[in-house]
Amino acid sequence: MRKAFLTAVLVTLPVAALAEDPAEELVEARQGYYSLLGANMHNLVSMVKGETAYDGAKAQTAADNMLVLTKYHVGTLYLPGTSSEDVKGSRALPKIWEDPAGMQEKGMAFVKAVENLNEVAGLDKGELGKAVQNLGGTCKGCHDSYRAKD
Amino acid sequence: MRKAFLTAVLVTLPVAALAEDPAEELVEARQGYYSLLGANMHNLVSMVKGETAYDGAKAQTAADNMLVLTKYHVGTLYLPGTSSEDVKGSRALPKIWEDPAGMQEKGMAFVKAVENLNEVAGLDKGELGKAVQNLGGTCKGCHDSYRAKD
Repeated sequence: MRKAFLTAVLVTLPVAALAEDPAEELVEARQGYYSLLGANMHNLVSMVKGETAYDGAKAQTAADNMLVLTKYHVGTLYLPGTSSEDVKGSRALPKIWEDPAGMQEKGMAFVKAVENLNEVAGLDKGELGKAVQNLGGTCKGCHDSYRAKD
Repeated sequence: MRKAFLTAVLVTLPVAALAEDPAEELVEARQGYYSLLGANMHNLVSMVKGETAYDGAKAQTAADNMLVLTKYHVGTLYLPGTSSEDVKGSRALPKIWEDPAGMQEKGMAFVKAVENLNEVAGLDKGELGKAVQNLGGTCKGCHDSYRAKD
């Protein structure tokens, strides 16, 4: 009975969770994490660039979402064996696992930038612009070092 | 100068954030959200089924991650125009937008099940099993009503 139910639970899991290769599944989840960050960042950049009107509530929501994501145990997304050399489609360079301290430092800069963003996003477009610029720099800092080029 | 920097920021965003179609980008981010939930659920189900050894710390981390994700403003992932009839690859049935109260109710059941999971995941394998079973039921409850079949 119990086993039958658990089988049913597995069947209802998202497709990603049913990937046969755990490494591929993890890469998909990891890319999902950055897709979520990217979607919120995109909304904020659009406001800063004036492509969409500045809306304090929407900016704060995007900032909130990014702050929520900083609470996720990101280390669980970076298990060994999931680099660009291990999994097709992964752009995570092996250097990530060779230089965890460097990666950690970049990650902390990102978290601080998201915290800073959260303090101003809903209040003022000019301040939002500075915070997004600062945050974008921390994204780039990590991508330049630890992500394979397209 | 500022515009140049913002362009650089955009260039460094994840690929998903650079999708030309905002609806496709949103679907990708939404599927990323559920991939993250699925990866954690998969880890927990594996422990419950005995495919991997029960590890309280790892179980708690997975439960923590799921709780973090419940704090995300999920409504931002369900903008109109992103259903299975709007975007290729989306499995979100139009009913979601026709019955927001029903969807909300299923969502709240899921959140409560994740909160319940969090209280026991790290303590006891038997309790974890019950909590995962309960949680899986809330996943299924929503999928059965609001997600297109494969």
